[in-house]
Order: sequence, then structure tokens, then C-alpha cells
Amino acid sequence: MTTASRTIDQLSIDTIRTLSIDAIEKAKSGHPGMPMGAAPMAYELWARFMNHSSANPTWVNRDRFVLSAGHGSMLLYSLLHLFGYEDTPMEQLKQFRQWGSKTPGHPEFGHTAGVDATTGPLGQGFAMAVGMAMAEAHTAAVYNRDGYNVIDHYTYVICGDGDLMEGISGEAASLAAHLKLNKLVVLYDSNDISLDGDLNLAFSENVETRFKGYGWNVIRVNDGNDLAEINKAIAAAKNSDAPTLIEVKTVIGYGSPNKQGKGGHAGPHGSPLGGDEAKLTKAFYEWPHEEFHVPEAVAANFAELKAKGDAAAAAWKELFAKYRDAHPALAAQFETAFAGENPAGWDAAIPTFDTSEKPMATRAASGKVINAISPNLPTFFGGSADLESSTNTHLNDTGKFQPGSYAERNVYFGVREFAMGAAMNGMALHGGVKAFGGTFFVFSDYLRPAIRLAAIQKLPVVYVFTHDSIAVGEDGPTHEPIEQLAAIRSMIDVTVIRPADANETAEAWRYALSSKDRPVALILTRQNLPVLAGTAENARDGIARGAYVIADAPAGAKPAAQIIATGSEVQLAVDAQKALALEGIHVRVVSMPSMDRFEAQDKAYRQSVILPDVKARLVIEMASPFGWHKYAGDEGDILGISTYGASAPGPKVIEEYGFTVPNVVAKVKALLK
Amino acid sequence: MTTASRTIDQLSIDTIRTLSIDAIEKAKSGHPGMPMGAAPMAYELWARFMNHSSANPTWVNRDRFVLSAGHGSMLLYSLLHLFGYEDTPMEQLKQFRQWGSKTPGHPEFGHTAGVDATTGPLGQGFAMAVGMAMAEAHTAAVYNRDGYNVIDHYTYVICGDGDLMEGISGEAASLAAHLKLNKLVVLYDSNDISLDGDLNLAFSENVETRFKGYGWNVIRVNDGNDLAEINKAIAAAKNSDAPTLIEVKTVIGYGSPNKQGKGGHAGPHGSPLGGDEAKLTKAFYEWPHEEFHVPEAVAANFAELKAKGDAAAAAWKELFAKYRDAHPALAAQFETAFAGENPAGWDAAIPTFDTSEKPMATRAASGKVINAISPNLPTFFGGSADLESSTNTHLNDTGKFQPGSYAERNVYFGVREFAMGAAMNGMALHGGVKAFGGTFFVFSDYLRPAIRLAAIQKLPVVYVFTHDSIAVGEDGPTHEPIEQLAAIRSMIDVTVIRPADANETAEAWRYALSSKDRPVALILTRQNLPVLAGTAENARDGIARGAYVIADAPAGAKPAAQIIATGSEVQLAVDAQKALALEGIHVRVVSMPSMDRFEAQDKAYRQSVILPDVKARLVIEMASPFGWHKYAGDEGDILGISTYGASAPGPKVIEEYGFTVPNVVAKVKALLK
Repeated sequence: MTTASRTIDQLSIDTIRTLSIDAIEKAKSGHPGMPMGAAPMAYELWARFMNHSSANPTWVNRDRFVLSAGHGSMLLYSLLHLFGYEDTPMEQLKQFRQWGSKTPGHPEFGHTAGVDATTGPLGQGFAMAVGMAMAEAHTAAVYNRDGYNVIDHYTYVICGDGDLMEGISGEAASLAAHLKLNKLVVLYDSNDISLDGDLNLAFSENVETRFKGYGWNVIRVNDGNDLAEINKAIAAAKNSDAPTLIEVKTVIGYGSPNKQGKGGHAGPHGSPLGGDEAKLTKAFYEWPHEEFHVPEAVAANFAELKAKGDAAAAAWKELFAKYRDAHPALAAQFETAFAGENPAGWDAAIPTFDTSEKPMATRAASGKVINAISPNLPTFFGGSADLESSTNTHLNDTGKFQPGSYAERNVYFGVREFAMGAAMNGMALHGGVKAFGGTFFVFSDYLRPAIRLAAIQKLPVVYVFTHDSIAVGEDGPTHEPIEQLAAIRSMIDVTVIRPADANETAEAWRYALSSKDRPVALILTRQNLPVLAGTAENARDGIARGAYVIADAPAGAKPAAQIIATGSEVQLAVDAQKALALEGIHVRVVSMPSMDRFEAQDKAYRQSVILPDVKARLVIEMASPFGWHKYAGDEGDILGISTYGASAPGPKVIEEYGFTVPNVVAKVKALLK
Repeated sequence: MTTASRTIDQLSIDTIRTLSIDAIEKAKSGHPGMPMGAAPMAYELWARFMNHSSANPTWVNRDRFVLSAGHGSMLLYSLLHLFGYEDTPMEQLKQFRQWGSKTPGHPEFGHTAGVDATTGPLGQGFAMAVGMAMAEAHTAAVYNRDGYNVIDHYTYVICGDGDLMEGISGEAASLAAHLKLNKLVVLYDSNDISLDGDLNLAFSENVETRFKGYGWNVIRVNDGNDLAEINKAIAAAKNSDAPTLIEVKTVIGYGSPNKQGKGGHAGPHGSPLGGDEAKLTKAFYEWPHEEFHVPEAVAANFAELKAKGDAAAAAWKELFAKYRDAHPALAAQFETAFAGENPAGWDAAIPTFDTSEKPMATRAASGKVINAISPNLPTFFGGSADLESSTNTHLNDTGKFQPGSYAERNVYFGVREFAMGAAMNGMALHGGVKAFGGTFFVFSDYLRPAIRLAAIQKLPVVYVFTHDSIAVGEDGPTHEPIEQLAAIRSMIDVTVIRPADANETAEAWRYALSSKDRPVALILTRQNLPVLAGTAENARDGIARGAYVIADAPAGAKPAAQIIATGSEVQLAVDAQKALALEGIHVRVVSMPSMDRFEAQDKAYRQSVILPDVKARLVIEMASPFGWHKYAGDEGDILGISTYGASAPGPKVIEEYGFTVPNVVAKVKALLK
């Protein structure tokens, strides 16, 4: 087959392949095997099915595309280039994996137009796509009206064997089938190869049977170069009543005479082909051109395809204009939602709590607050990992998000913390919803990799982490968070708030739901806490600024010491302050619900809260002391925990670990000696 | 059916149920539903199949039992009590979930005799059992000889719906089937209920089909009270050529007239029945006895069963004595291995590296070191999550651990980090092997919950975490660890070692493989590092003590400043020291490969390394500064990273982030102003 006799489709596919090879060769780094093997399925999908517009890369009703096998990034960049996306001109392909380029090693959402999700950590792309499909189903149910399907799109994924080995893809697949997300279509690049060599070193399951077990529609394409079969499969998938997995058998590094089909480091998975092999491969493709070449016919082909996508986006805009006329209120809500804004008055009903109220767990306060917010925030959408009544995450003004009731807003993620975290990311990426999800704080470890991807992607999702300390009590060490506070605070661009009472909890929610560019984690108690004096007035500013003086030494008196506490330990600090005052020792108590927010304040504010010249400082937190020396300082002390806790009634555990007024008093006095 | 007419089996089962109910009522806390529903399958398993001896709870060839649904702990404690295990007399059942008791909320390995694994975090029990079965298969292949099956036991699991919803069970199940672990038998307590209510809120997959997809043998028992069917199923499972899942349909809280079969907080899943309902339930059981009652016939039944188990253990001891005569060397190796000891000379071949050697990544040094150790350490058993050649974890003196070659020691875990971590725990719990496992450091997040359970259980497994910083370069933010060092250091009872060169790496391995009571994580570079002056002599003590002076100010000169660095940044500190010396500024450089080991030293040593009165201190680490203020002190500075990195060649990223000699020099000088 000569270049001339090839179909335009084949020529386009070989262009994708050679652009990928050339960029990786130039970078001397990358993964050519995947783009070479998967180019036909990607081309067929993007050319014949994907509704997208490079002139409108954020068009809300575009089909979403997630390259879950993110190491194959050049496949995506080649497509984006050919479709004319603004961030990926040829110069950028030549800058693949270079400092400051738009073409980093793995696709990065928000960095490169046309990239719908940051991928690379395996399995998470698949699960984010499930979240996107959930958001699609929900927003379609909420906003569509007769004749106005303003949300009506598919979510497509290309994943690899590694994605399907990761447990999260199993969790997400099970959830997707349960929810009958039939507009989710996953193309599985099945090449029998892994980094260590042949896939059958570690993976011998029957993926088709496994996915049928979850409830998926499964289709097999035996030849990954057969465009007609791929086309038929995708068309069938679009008409399925379940999510569809299309297993496409491919040859990794297709066309490379000495490397194709090989695993391990001899193969084309994780390294450039090398100059000689690249030449041999191009000879196989009958590709006589210089590097980074796009034949004119190919450019014309993609220009036509691009125009088709741009026209679809334009048609949608017309449809939406009519929708706005027909359903003005709904259209306004739609536009606010997809702009990532909250409607006016969304937070008007957030309650204030009085010190006369009965002690209340912050998880319970949280439950009251979200139910005050929910009727005024139609985008509020979430649930928990099978701990609805423990995490107090049920929304009373709406029903269950289930097949047949997609417009409802209580989501049941099942005992699938990691998939929950990734699906929340997918929802936020999709837009139109404010996603939240809850579980026990100790199990935040299960979804930690998804929190990281939320932060990297700047997604304002909200985590509701309850049962936040040894006060959990009877459940014992496996259920008592110790190091989780330090661990989540060590993450970059994640706001962590551990409120001290119901008022701080209310303001934590106001803050969290106002976030536009970072995830927020709320760390809440299982046990009851009193409503503290001063929080009704000061918590709003105190949460936003991360820390504030909740109880000071008497006016005019310089504090002898400063106690810094968070969450449930603030009441203990306040009680100890009173006991110390009886002995004539006057201390300042600082509530620090959010270390990261405090650190974002200017020095003047920080020094007004924690007086730099009062070196006698005691930090109190029922958690690992790791990370607190910054505030305790060289001469301070930390009352923390350095074991994994114990099983006994909560108050007993708290007492045994020394979180008592007498012990705090003694520790402060020791600092003053 | 009256008490008198009941079979002894039924009476025994009702005893398990009522003991569980009574202990939970007394504690006013616990999960009665699971023990009530699963008592028949547990009884049938323990009475008719489980080879175990309460007189010898650590008998190495006992059948292992993992209660993956760890919240049903009273089921296990009731059995342990009835079988006469020493830690669980009746007083201890009455102390369920109380301070200092042997009957904590979830089963804790090492705390209560007869508990083979700490469970509670869902899915991990299942995956630990897979690791146990792997260790069984391996040690059987290594040690058994004709007529001497010294290792020949089963691993049994009881799990619930929640376990199977967690992704880790999917990973572990896929691996178990691939490895044809046919001596693994999982009883699935299938009760259609979850904490949030009916299971079908979130879980509607066909578990049987899914597990057949993995390659499991699946058997269904339609009535969880039918002992004959349960017996038949377990017997069939024992003769399978694949791991077996027995789905046993049960009724949660069986016998409770108002709560059985109910989900959510109205049901018996997560709360005591309550006194009235407990009475009604006992009426249903026709159980007229006082609380905590064991009928005499039941006591006699269990005494007989116990004797059978003790006899089996005694018979094994006799077998082993003969084995020792027939195969003395192998028996000695066996005894050393199962005592958790290393053989004499195991570390004799650990190399020392000279400063004249070519720069070498610490991952490469690690590869050399483990291959020097492996021939002398026959228990050394592990691999990676599909990153063998990237993490340099291949052992050259042994083959692939696969069906048919179980005696080999290179394990292929697949892209399943979390299952790898939990399986390593299972191997360590089983005994006879020193388990290790590797992946990229950034993906340590994926297995973090398993690291926590390793620490809680005091298991000396070794993690090989490579690609430890932004020096990874081109792969970009998703692959560049930033907060992982702080996060893993924040864990309790985990030793973290980040060696600075090949010699520190060698000594890190010596230290790690000497650990008997805690996991050790080795944090290794992708990029080459020079062999530093002084490490050949000092690294052994330096690793053991966590930190040491690697380059000091000239003799007699008090350092003007101290630079504290770890891993790849130590060379930068040493280079900066030389540059500063040229300007007449003499500083001390401390290499701190292990913060936790350093903190375990006495104050005198700590103050001899970091001089307390030299307050100008710069910490250098290409990671989040979180946690370093303790050593920088109030007047020090930290050169760290507070973003998620970038995609570009490693040296470029390092330079852009300021890890250069001129920048370090400037920062030290700024401290001296």
C-alpha cells in the first residue's frame, strides 16, 4: 500500500502515529507503544463519534474524553493538534515534556485546552469518567425539557490493562453498572503487555466475564486496525442500556519491526523507539516524510472534522438560546451552575448556634448545616461511602440518585472510598454540580490518591471526614485516626478545616462551598461538643483566616502562655484556661481550624493571633504531633498522640491519653518553669 | 424445637450467637448482626475443617482464619473462648471493647491469641489472606519433601459485602486466581444489607460471574443455616484447583424478630440489639439461660473439638521431629525462617561502594545490594507492582513465583499496589518469608492503608519506593512525589529511610532486613548520585541512628551554620559546604536518612549531631517542608517545595526549583545576617 493509495483514514492514523513517535524521539522520553497501537481506535472515535469543538474547548455539552492510560499522552496531543486546539500547535508537539510547554508528560486538565482530565495514576481516569457520566445523567435529568436536550453527551475513555488491574476501576465499574450509566463507553486497549513483560505474568483473568459480572455490556474487536469493526462497536455501545466496555485487541508499538508486541524494557512501552527503529517503523508505514509532517490531505481531513464539531457547538448555542427563552429560570440556574457559581442567597439559611444549645457533634452540626443549605443550592450533589447516617450526609429535601431518579441528589457510592473520591473529581470536571462525599476520617487514606488529583486539577470538591480522633473509642486502632491530620495537611493546595464546634462547622461549610480552585476537607467529630462562647460572632472570619483568638488573657494582661488547639480540643483548652486563671496564670487560647488558611494570611495577622514573643506555647491535638513544631516553636510543647490508639469507650480513651484539664494545666505550668 | 431436642451443633451455634449478643449488650457497642447471621458457617468451618490448636496458637502449619468483616469480632471471640484460647476466658468476653481488654472492637493480631490478622478496614482482610496463601504455597514448595508435608494448610476467610465492594478485594482476587491459590477458601456472608440500608442501593453486580471472570471457583449456599450444604461447599472448595468463593446467603441479625434482615440504623448491623430485643431474640432461639451462658453439652462439644486440634498439632510436631532427622539443614532453615530470624551470614555479602565509582541511582544501588543479599537469605521474597526494572527489585538468583514454580522468589504483583501492600502483610503474618514490594514513591499513596496495618500489626515488611522526587522529571506532577515524605513520616511505628548514596542504601537494607517489629520504607532515587566521602565508614551507624555528621566544619571551628539534608540533597549540601568554605564560612552538614530513627536516639546523641546552640540551620529536601520545622528551629529555614512539580527533564526541574549550590549558599548566608 503506497501513501497515495491509502485511505485518508489510514493516512490520518499514520500521521497520529508518526507525530507521536517524533515528539517522543525529540524529547528522548515518553511512551510511544500505546499511541502506535491505539491510534486507529482513537481516530475512529474522534473522527466519527466525538462531539467536540476545538473553537469551544469548554463547551458544556461536548462529549468528554478521558485518556485513562495517561502515559500515552502523545496520542491525545496529536489529536488535539490535528483538530486545531489552540494550545497544541506544532511548536508545542516539538516541546513535548519540556519546561513550560503545553505538552507535559501526562495530560493535565486546566493546562492544555481539550484535556478533560489529568491522568497518569492508573485507574483514576476510568473512575473520573464514571463521575462525569454521573454528572451528565444528573444534569440531563435536572435541566432537559421536551425538545431541549441541553445536556446530552457521551463520556468516552481509552484505558489499558494497568487501569483494569487497579482496584479502583473495579469499584467504579460496579458503581457505573449499578447506576446504568449507558452513556459511558470505555475502549480497552488490550495489548497483552505490561511494563514487566507479558501481561500473563500477573494478569490472566477474563475481563469480559468480570465486566459482565458488574453488569456491563461488553464488545470485543479482534483487530485494533479494523476501523469498520471499531465503528460498529462504538455505535452498538451508544445504544446499550448499560455502560459498555469495548475490548480492542491491539499490538503495542504497531509497526515497529523490532519492538512491536514486546513487553518490558525491550519493548516500546516506556521508552522512545530510538532513531534507527523509528526509521524502520516509518518505512513499515511507508512514510517518507521529514519529522513532524502532516500531509496536506490529512490537514484537510481534520479541518473538515473540526468544522463539523464547531458547527455542532454552534447549533447547541442556538438551541440553548431558545431554551433560555422557553425556560428562563432553569436556563439561568444552568448557567450559574456550569459557571461554577452558587446562586444568590445560597448560604442565607446557614444557621448560627447558641451556647445554650445542647452539646452536638460537629458531624451532627454538619448535617444540620447542609440541610439548611441544600434547598438553596440546587447543584449540591453527593453522599457517602455507605456511611450516610454516620457521616450525617443525607440531604432531606431530595431523594436517591438512582436509575430512574437521576434528578435526585443523594448519591450512594457504596463501600468504595477511592472510586468515590475519583468520581467526585469527575463530577467537578464535568461541571454543573458541587460534589461532596463522606467517610470516616481514618479511611481518608483509601481515597488519598484522588484527593491529590483533586488538588492538582484545582477541583473544589468537599470531603466530609467524620469520626476524627481516638474519641471514636470502642472501634479501636483500625478506626481511630492518628496520623491522618498530619498526612492531609502535608498535601499542597488542599484546605483542611477541623472545626471546634457547631458554629465553626457552619462557617467551614460556607467557606468550603465558596471554594473555586481547591478541594476542602472537613474533619468532624463523632462525639458531642459544646457550642463555645465567641464562635457565633467570630467563626466566619476565623475559618476564613484559619485561626483566631477564641479566649484571651484579661484585657491589658500579656498572656503568660498560649494554647493552640483545633477541633474537639479547643473546649479542653478553654477549660484549662479557666482552671489556670484560678491560679492566677493567664493564657491565650487560639482556635486553629485550618493551618493552611492561617499560613495564607499575612505576617501581621499571624503575629496578632500567635504572639511571637510569648514562647510558652502548648499545642493540643488528639493526633500525631507531626507538623506542629512550627507553631509550638523551639520552647513549646505538644500534647499529641504517638501510638495507634485503643479500643474502649471514648471518654476513657481520651482520659488515658491525657487529654484532661489537669494534664493540660500541668503542661502549661511546666512551660513556665 | 426445644433446647433438649436440638442437635449439639445447633446448640453450639446458638451459644456463639448469644455470647455475641450478650457481650455487645454489656459493652453497649458493637455489631451483633454479623455474628448472628454468620454463626452457622463459622461453626461448621471451625468445628469440621479448621486445623488449629488452642494449646498452640502460633503453630506454623495451622489453618489460617481471617475475619475480613472485622466488625463482627464477637463471632471470633466467641469461637476463641469456646475453643479454650488462653486470652479469651469468659471475663474477657465480658470486657468486650473495654480499656485494656483482650477483646477490642476489631480483632487485633499480636494482642489476642488465635487472631491471625488485624481486620476492620474493609477489603484488607481478604487481601491479607491472599498473601497468606501465597506464603503457604511458597514455603510448602521450598520445605516439603516426600512424606514430609510440613507446610500444608488452608487459609479461610469470612468476608462481607463491604469487603467485596472495596477495590482491593478485586485486585487480590485477580492475583489469587492468576496464582491458582487453590488452598484459599473465602466464605462470603451475603446478607443483602449494608450500613446505609439495602445493599441494592449501591451494589447490584453478579458476584458469582465477576469472580468466575477472575478465575475463581464459585459455590453458592442458599440457606446460611443449612450446615450440610455449608459442609459440602467447604469440602468441594478444598478440592478445587482454583481459589474458591462460597457465597452463603444469610439473614443479618438472624433470630431478632424486629431487626433481622434490616439495613441501616433500624437494623442490627452497627448497634446492640437493645435489652428488649435481645430478650425477644433469645426467646426465638428458645434460650432461657442467664447471660453469658455456655450449656454443659456445648462446653463438652468444644472440649472434644479442641482436643482434636491439639492432637493435630502434636502429630505435626512429631512429623517435624522426623523431618529434622531426615532433612536437618532444611529443618534448620525452616525453624530460622519461621522464628522470623535471618540465617547467620545473611548480610555478609552486602557491598561497600567507593567514591571512585560511577555515580549510581540509589534504586540501582538497591538492586545491587538485594542481589548480594538474596543468595544468603532464602526467605527473601517479593517483587513489585509491575515496575520490576524501574524499581530494580528483580532477584537474579531465583525465578518467577508462578503456578508450577512456587519455590521461586520473584513475585509479580501486577498493577495492584494496594493488594501488594496487604498481601505483604499476609505473608509476614503467615511467617517463613521476609516480604518486600516496590513501586514508585508517588504511588505509596495507593497502598497507604496497608502500610498502616503493617505498622499496627508490627510486621517487618520492606517497601522499595523509587523515583522519589521532582528529579523524576518528564513524567510530571502526577508522578513526582512532593508530600509523600511528610505523609509517610507522619505514620507511627514506620521506619522511613531516604539514603544519600549507595553506601547509605546498602546499610538501609541491612537495617530494614534486621527489623522484627516494624515496616521499613526505603525511599530511593531514579537519578544517579555520587558515592559520598565518609559513607563507606559511617553509614552503618548513621542509618541505625537516623542521622550523622557527614561533613563538618574544620576541626576546632564551631560551625557558623548547620545544613540538614536527606537523600539526593546531601550531595548538594556537601557541595554548598565547599562553596561556602571558599568564602570562609564553615558549616556542618548532617545527613538524616531517617527522622524516626534519629528521634529514637537519646538527647546526648541528638545534640551531638545537631548542635543546639547553632541556630542558623537550613534543611534541604526536594519535598514538602511540612514536618521539618522541628529541626530547622525558630531561626532556621527550609528549602523545600510547595507545588506539585512540573514536567521537564529532571536536571531542569531541579534547577528551576532552586536546588542549586548558589541558591543554597545564598540561603545559608541569609541565615547568618
